[in-house]
Amino acid sequence: MMTQSPPWSLDPQLQRDTAAIGDLTLARVLAMNNANYPWLVLVPRIAGAVEIIDLDDEQQAQLIDEIAMLSRVLKDVTQCHKLNVAAIGNVVAQLHIHIVARRRDDAAWPKPVWGAVPARPYASADLASFIARIRAEVAFG
Amino acid sequence: MMTQSPPWSLDPQLQRDTAAIGDLTLARVLAMNNANYPWLVLVPRIAGAVEIIDLDDEQQAQLIDEIAMLSRVLKDVTQCHKLNVAAIGNVVAQLHIHIVARRRDDAAWPKPVWGAVPARPYASADLASFIARIRAEVAFG
Repeated sequence: MMTQSPPWSLDPQLQRDTAAIGDLTLARVLAMNNANYPWLVLVPRIAGAVEIIDLDDEQQAQLIDEIAMLSRVLKDVTQCHKLNVAAIGNVVAQLHIHIVARRRDDAAWPKPVWGAVPARPYASADLASFIARIRAEVAFG
Repeated sequence: MMTQSPPWSLDPQLQRDTAAIGDLTLARVLAMNNANYPWLVLVPRIAGAVEIIDLDDEQQAQLIDEIAMLSRVLKDVTQCHKLNVAAIGNVVAQLHIHIVARRRDDAAWPKPVWGAVPARPYASADLASFIARIRAEVAFG
């Protein structure tokens, strides 16, 4: 009997910390519920993927395309000073890529955002507004 | 008269903090002089590039290929538990991508490495040994 891999599903901690924006060809796009910085998270919908190198070549090419497209959108929407793009995953193993819009006057600048200051949840209308501004510029499936 | 962009050269702070390993098609590969973690830095040799989206599509495709190749090499050489891959650049503007080999017993785990604990320079023979192990697995130009 063949062992079947379980299908992909979003890691529960990512689910708790974010709101879904939509699905691209490879990745689910999430908004981190942290009003300190406009912050997107891409999660390739590939069961078991932990590292970028767990993706095949075609998936890696798609990943950099989706990172670049969302980086441009996030920069346009926020007029940020710098983008921070990172695949870390020391706590949540499921492969996920952070794209964070940084400003020179934000809560952690110039430090990276992870662990710098406690997350500050959005007022729900503000989170909805951020998500709507991203959706207005992205063709989700 | 046309204005000429200055040619690419390595940022002075990156130069101070690292040792050169070699050049790939797109990026210079550096070893961070920090014995706390085996740590590579890729610097695309594109003058003026600050963000991944400052690269054109072909350069972005080459970048993900070089990130993946070096990630596999670093994982093989170090037998690390996790890779951390990040383009941050809040302090050094020149586009550079960190690839850090993490262990569950390293100095900062599970925190990201940036700002976690002070850098600990290698004994020079140990840095040379790390560089030699990377060079043995990579075809540099």
